[in-house]
Amino acid sequence: MVNVGIIGVTGYVGMEIVRLLHSHPEVNISVIVNQSFTGMKMSDVYPHLKNVFEMECRSLDIEGVMDKADIFVFALPDTASQQIIPAFIEKNRRVIDHSGSFRYRDVKVYEEWYKVKHAAPDYVNMAVYGLPEIYRDKIRTAGLVANPGCYPTCSILGLAPLLAHKLVDTRSIIINAVSGVSGAGRKTDLMYQFSERTESFCAYGVASHRHTSEIEQELSLLAGEKIRVSFTPHLAPMKRGMLCTIYADLAEERNTAELIDIYKEYYRDEFFVRVLDEGKVPETKHTAGSNFIDIGIVVDKRLNRVIVLSALDNLGKGAAGQAVQVLNLMCGFPENTGLKSPGLYL
Amino acid sequence: MVNVGIIGVTGYVGMEIVRLLHSHPEVNISVIVNQSFTGMKMSDVYPHLKNVFEMECRSLDIEGVMDKADIFVFALPDTASQQIIPAFIEKNRRVIDHSGSFRYRDVKVYEEWYKVKHAAPDYVNMAVYGLPEIYRDKIRTAGLVANPGCYPTCSILGLAPLLAHKLVDTRSIIINAVSGVSGAGRKTDLMYQFSERTESFCAYGVASHRHTSEIEQELSLLAGEKIRVSFTPHLAPMKRGMLCTIYADLAEERNTAELIDIYKEYYRDEFFVRVLDEGKVPETKHTAGSNFIDIGIVVDKRLNRVIVLSALDNLGKGAAGQAVQVLNLMCGFPENTGLKSPGLYL
Amino acid sequence: MVNVGIIGVTGYVGMEIVRLLHSHPEVNISVIVNQSFTGMKMSDVYPHLKNVFEMECRSLDIEGVMDKADIFVFALPDTASQQIIPAFIEKNRRVIDHSGSFRYRDVKVYEEWYKVKHAAPDYVNMAVYGLPEIYRDKIRTAGLVANPGCYPTCSILGLAPLLAHKLVDTRSIIINAVSGVSGAGRKTDLMYQFSERTESFCAYGVASHRHTSEIEQELSLLAGEKIRVSFTPHLAPMKRGMLCTIYADLAEERNTAELIDIYKEYYRDEFFVRVLDEGKVPETKHTAGSNFIDIGIVVDKRLNRVIVLSALDNLGKGAAGQAVQVLNLMCGFPENTGLKSPGLYL
Amino acid sequence: MVNVGIIGVTGYVGMEIVRLLHSHPEVNISVIVNQSFTGMKMSDVYPHLKNVFEMECRSLDIEGVMDKADIFVFALPDTASQQIIPAFIEKNRRVIDHSGSFRYRDVKVYEEWYKVKHAAPDYVNMAVYGLPEIYRDKIRTAGLVANPGCYPTCSILGLAPLLAHKLVDTRSIIINAVSGVSGAGRKTDLMYQFSERTESFCAYGVASHRHTSEIEQELSLLAGEKIRVSFTPHLAPMKRGMLCTIYADLAEERNTAELIDIYKEYYRDEFFVRVLDEGKVPETKHTAGSNFIDIGIVVDKRLNRVIVLSALDNLGKGAAGQAVQVLNLMCGFPENTGLKSPGLYL
Repeated sequence: MVNVGIIGVTGYVGMEIVRLLHSHPEVNISVIVNQSFTGMKMSDVYPHLKNVFEMECRSLDIEGVMDKADIFVFALPDTASQQIIPAFIEKNRRVIDHSGSFRYRDVKVYEEWYKVKHAAPDYVNMAVYGLPEIYRDKIRTAGLVANPGCYPTCSILGLAPLLAHKLVDTRSIIINAVSGVSGAGRKTDLMYQFSERTESFCAYGVASHRHTSEIEQELSLLAGEKIRVSFTPHLAPMKRGMLCTIYADLAEERNTAELIDIYKEYYRDEFFVRVLDEGKVPETKHTAGSNFIDIGIVVDKRLNRVIVLSALDNLGKGAAGQAVQVLNLMCGFPENTGLKSPGLYL
Repeated sequence: MVNVGIIGVTGYVGMEIVRLLHSHPEVNISVIVNQSFTGMKMSDVYPHLKNVFEMECRSLDIEGVMDKADIFVFALPDTASQQIIPAFIEKNRRVIDHSGSFRYRDVKVYEEWYKVKHAAPDYVNMAVYGLPEIYRDKIRTAGLVANPGCYPTCSILGLAPLLAHKLVDTRSIIINAVSGVSGAGRKTDLMYQFSERTESFCAYGVASHRHTSEIEQELSLLAGEKIRVSFTPHLAPMKRGMLCTIYADLAEERNTAELIDIYKEYYRDEFFVRVLDEGKVPETKHTAGSNFIDIGIVVDKRLNRVIVLSALDNLGKGAAGQAVQVLNLMCGFPENTGLKSPGLYL
Repeated sequence: MVNVGIIGVTGYVGMEIVRLLHSHPEVNISVIVNQSFTGMKMSDVYPHLKNVFEMECRSLDIEGVMDKADIFVFALPDTASQQIIPAFIEKNRRVIDHSGSFRYRDVKVYEEWYKVKHAAPDYVNMAVYGLPEIYRDKIRTAGLVANPGCYPTCSILGLAPLLAHKLVDTRSIIINAVSGVSGAGRKTDLMYQFSERTESFCAYGVASHRHTSEIEQELSLLAGEKIRVSFTPHLAPMKRGMLCTIYADLAEERNTAELIDIYKEYYRDEFFVRVLDEGKVPETKHTAGSNFIDIGIVVDKRLNRVIVLSALDNLGKGAAGQAVQVLNLMCGFPENTGLKSPGLYL
Repeated sequence: MVNVGIIGVTGYVGMEIVRLLHSHPEVNISVIVNQSFTGMKMSDVYPHLKNVFEMECRSLDIEGVMDKADIFVFALPDTASQQIIPAFIEKNRRVIDHSGSFRYRDVKVYEEWYKVKHAAPDYVNMAVYGLPEIYRDKIRTAGLVANPGCYPTCSILGLAPLLAHKLVDTRSIIINAVSGVSGAGRKTDLMYQFSERTESFCAYGVASHRHTSEIEQELSLLAGEKIRVSFTPHLAPMKRGMLCTIYADLAEERNTAELIDIYKEYYRDEFFVRVLDEGKVPETKHTAGSNFIDIGIVVDKRLNRVIVLSALDNLGKGAAGQAVQVLNLMCGFPENTGLKSPGLYL
């Protein structure tokens, strides 16, 4: 049994990590931290956990908390992550972080897109980008894993086989992404009110969303060349779910069947990546509540352009599920331990 | 390991039973039957099961199917259930049925409310009503269990402590019930179309819904007297979830705290019944995806009337979850085996 | 042309009043007031009004605003209404108020249920309760009209014929009400966030909602005796819409057809009250976007109990539509001027 | 007063045309036709119309119907349109058709994409494409107007200024489109069931949707060269609304402000086209229930690529609203007669 602490437990990502780790056979949640609900039981904040998980939220006294676990999952805003995580690292605690703080190879890119000064630049280089399908081996031994954003996970896994095999014109990549509202977190902004969001659809952060830089970093590394992409996020009136519709011009003529074969081969050993058969397209509800990502591929022969559709649960493979997958790797457990369940469909 | 067969597997209840039994540590799904999708894989009908549960649907050749399992869960329409189940019983297969066919003590009540002639009246008396919180011991040894409807489960468990303790005027009971749309099954009626149901709320079956008779049968048995109730079902624009708002005049003065104590005592040993503390009311999303039923109690002192609020997942405790709970009892497993997970909240 | 001012224009009720009055043939919106968006155009706050209604929000300098119109519609919180409206009344401006401030015959009832001291008790007696179907004549000449709450409108109109004809046991009335989320206004509470509300259903304010007192006041006046009711509001995952399911024991035996006749007769001259034929029940979407209220009646012969179902749009007949209906009466226009459009269905 | 007949009145488009024409000051709906509901009142099929529009549906006896009106709006499937419309044209009735039948300059393109033989090819050439912003003058005198599809309307108006001014590389156009479910019509397919659609998002018809050919035809005419585009439709869990996110590489460097100026100039006299100011993006709910189309423009300077966002109501400017706009032109009424109302926002 590994003792795991969750810092920032009462956001949606923290809540989902509790749900997953609670039924994980090799993990014991030994401490949970939240500043606003200190002293309250998690099941008072999230009543679906009543009689299931009754632990109290602690305040963040770093020394006291650090003793309680070997691995800590952080689900805090960027600023807080940068201020607090170094203390945990210094005391040899292993950390999985959900903020953007440690996802970048180059602190300057972070500072440019996030428009803040990084508070812990010295820790950036030691961090491993927590996408197991790409960085599995490094994650196993990492002390600090920066869990990818939901949009980057969905985009990178959708594009990786095309880039690895140099199948597309890398200047032509367009990622049109749609997210459920829980991706914004447990916020009370007017924009995320029920009456404002139901029965409406919109884009946001057009040509300026900071996940663009994270996607570009990883795609460039996969391709071995500098890549820039159009990335446009949208909000759909649903709670969970993400779909990326990705367009790229093919470098040479290919048909749908060929590309599906390449994807199936590329992801042959990946439990969580389901490449769909020709003629099928993913739906977000097929992944909701699970750690799966479903990928469909269609070649438009008329245009010699490929359209890749990748779907996942923004709280699952896009956040908490991926964190558990990373945790399994770090602890030497089979990678899908505690993650074998399908979603709920309904 | 117990081999379980599921007959009528491609409806929403069948799908949910697959989801639950697939991760059940003591159960092996050994055969699944559906007439429309014979030869297709379950994961082609429900793509969330891809790579998780790939079994093919068989046609219903009774002899061939019967050999494949010891216990069969039926999720078929009433007529089909009555025609097919007797053959399974005769061959000593144990059956859990989701239709209304075997829920009644008196075949005449069934025939009156369902407006059909019962095709297997001789099997009605041997059936046990599958509500573990009331009939636990009989279920353990039953050959045929009639799983209750979702509305009856939510209503009966909401009212049982009041009736057992004779706390209310039994002529005053009103059950105002609200269900998510999945309660109607995987139907293609115009009424259940997305554009027709979203952003709308309505009652249906007012003063005539057949679950009324099922509720009355069980409440009467609990109270030891003939009880009639008002029962009004409604449809809310959501997929899963059920809330009953139950009104009854108190026989003598009681306050909220007293009644909550009585409920907590009554359900003291019930894992799946969560009686809420004073001041809290249930929400359907706290139970969605789980086998829990949440019950809140408020006394209106001005009127000496109690309002009970009971919430569950119509596909969970209202159908598939309850079937697994019943299966656990029939097989001698701990009652919450495979059912310990909380719902998803989101 | 009547000049109308709207005070508190940027909430949902204010927005809807703008929508209705903008296409009203006899009304000119001459001034709109909001403190938070002073100087901004209404179409910047609500972009659906772009190119349609471009007026700027003014701040509430009472003297300056008062000169701009003859009639003012207020959509402010209670405290603000009580502080500001008297100044308008003193200057002979006619006022339609949406707060609870002036709805009560007895200030003590208001203070007890709203748990505040009333700041303008002297103006309570001059106010007319703005339900045209009951107080049409008084509204015509009123200086101050207190627009009813959405729940009271839906409840009172659903019950009025039964009480006027003394058809029910007045101690047995139970009102189970369901509202869309816009009824809470343009609030940013966590409870009204999209991810928290979608796919969930719950009650709130059980046995304590302040609209209970408003409903009881008006039902008592209709019946000529003191009436107390159970009133339980619920939230459904939709933006607009309200359905009351009302239960009452019949004083003597009646069937559905008889009661429908009585309702049709009672509302014979009412354009906005649609009494449904036997066998039909209302749906909120049939009224959404309109000023109609649809009423269905079912007698449960087994119990000699009537179930009345009344549906309206909480922003329409439950608020802004009713305000325009009242305004028409006050100005001597045909009562349905600017209100003849059906809702949108979808 | 112009007498208008509606053929195929009980679908969603027919219903919306009734709603709009019912309050149109210059139009009298003189006959409505539907084969399935012959003899029933429109308000029995759509109860929101009760007391508002009580006309009975007639069967389609062509001779009898033809006498009743001067202009007919058709909302029938393609096959039916092709079989019936010629008879109306021959008798000098003017027709506005919503099917795909008469939208193409080249019958072969229609037959290739719709995979059927056209039943009335001789009438294709006389038809005018019913997009007033492009073909206003021809529409005024047309005998047969082919109302555009919702996707083409949203795409073409989003791209027209770019093509007219030759601002983009025409080989780079990608249209990522999202529609509400009502776009599929009043169908009962499983795919459009509430439980299947709520809380899910998916693409369909990838690289094969027949609206692609309609979009390409009109874009090619605007640009004066043969254009091919990627067009990918998606379904969002909402009833009304459409958003196109359109990508194109700029032919030379331009910034956002310049392009917005060009759009504003291009649509200077268009009442229904609202070009948004810099920094604003459209939302479908701002157009729902109206005939407006909102267009936002963002230039991604890093990539020299423009992203155009165009939003409309698929039943409004995408269908019924546009039909009324066309009707106004054909009859010589001011173009926005009966169409001045904003949408509902909520």
